[in-house]
Amino acid sequence: MSILSILMKSDKDEPSSAPRSDCGLCVPEQETVIWRGAFWRLIDASTATSPGFLRLIVNRHVTELSWLAKPEREQLFSLLQVIDESIRQELKPTKINIASLGNQMPHMHWHIIPRWHDDPYFPQSIWSAAQRDTVSAEQDARHQAAQRLFAKLPKLCAKAVY
Amino acid sequence: MSILSILMKSDKDEPSSAPRSDCGLCVPEQETVIWRGAFWRLIDASTATSPGFLRLIVNRHVTELSWLAKPEREQLFSLLQVIDESIRQELKPTKINIASLGNQMPHMHWHIIPRWHDDPYFPQSIWSAAQRDTVSAEQDARHQAAQRLFAKLPKLCAKAVY
Repeated sequence: MSILSILMKSDKDEPSSAPRSDCGLCVPEQETVIWRGAFWRLIDASTATSPGFLRLIVNRHVTELSWLAKPEREQLFSLLQVIDESIRQELKPTKINIASLGNQMPHMHWHIIPRWHDDPYFPQSIWSAAQRDTVSAEQDARHQAAQRLFAKLPKLCAKAVY
Repeated sequence: MSILSILMKSDKDEPSSAPRSDCGLCVPEQETVIWRGAFWRLIDASTATSPGFLRLIVNRHVTELSWLAKPEREQLFSLLQVIDESIRQELKPTKINIASLGNQMPHMHWHIIPRWHDDPYFPQSIWSAAQRDTVSAEQDARHQAAQRLFAKLPKLCAKAVY
């Protein structure tokens, strides 16, 4: 390793963040993008049984929190804050779950998941075995509230990062 | 609600953060505290099959990210960053998982979980069904590295918040 490369990199183990043709988040097949910023994009990850499920994805191929550049990290935290607050106010869920796992897709993404006492997995994680197969009577109302939330988020996210 | 209380609170729905006698994180029965700061404490959450598992717990009874006071939030993000970096450098795991769920214990805590390709749940979440019951040949070495990590963390956490 040259002196120059040592001077330029504080951590010699830092992996490349070049786009990878084999990464489903570098080359997404299908995404419903709610908002796209310089460093992060927010997608609609909702399903029939998960109203308001959101996913925040870093644009570069970065795998771990501590590999993010400082501006990426600062924007991540601002975005998590405003998204959490908006979900809380618009959807009034029982709990909000926030998680960055990436074991199967090691390109950093954060799941932001409104949870309700009567959702299929509560009180377990959404990656656990289902607890019930009943559909909440509030399901449609939650999806409608989620659409209102999604419509507000582009402006809120832009404000959070600028 | 009085004018004064409206002036003092920006969000009238804000729940009380007084210690709750029925909360297992307000009144912990047993915790191995690695570091304790003004707002957060870091505990050893490792098990025989999860070397280096850490949990960051807010000292007040706060349930959601967006209910944290700004200094609590800033310290959370600084701590997650330094803990993630230390785990990466000391344990060299396959992946680091970070999650705040709290469905069963709605007092904010963050799981910070080093994951290895041959751990019991990989590539699923640790809340999913086990994938294997074999023990990695590296298990003891990982636990030893985790002890070295735990010994370094108090100084690193203190530096991150002051």
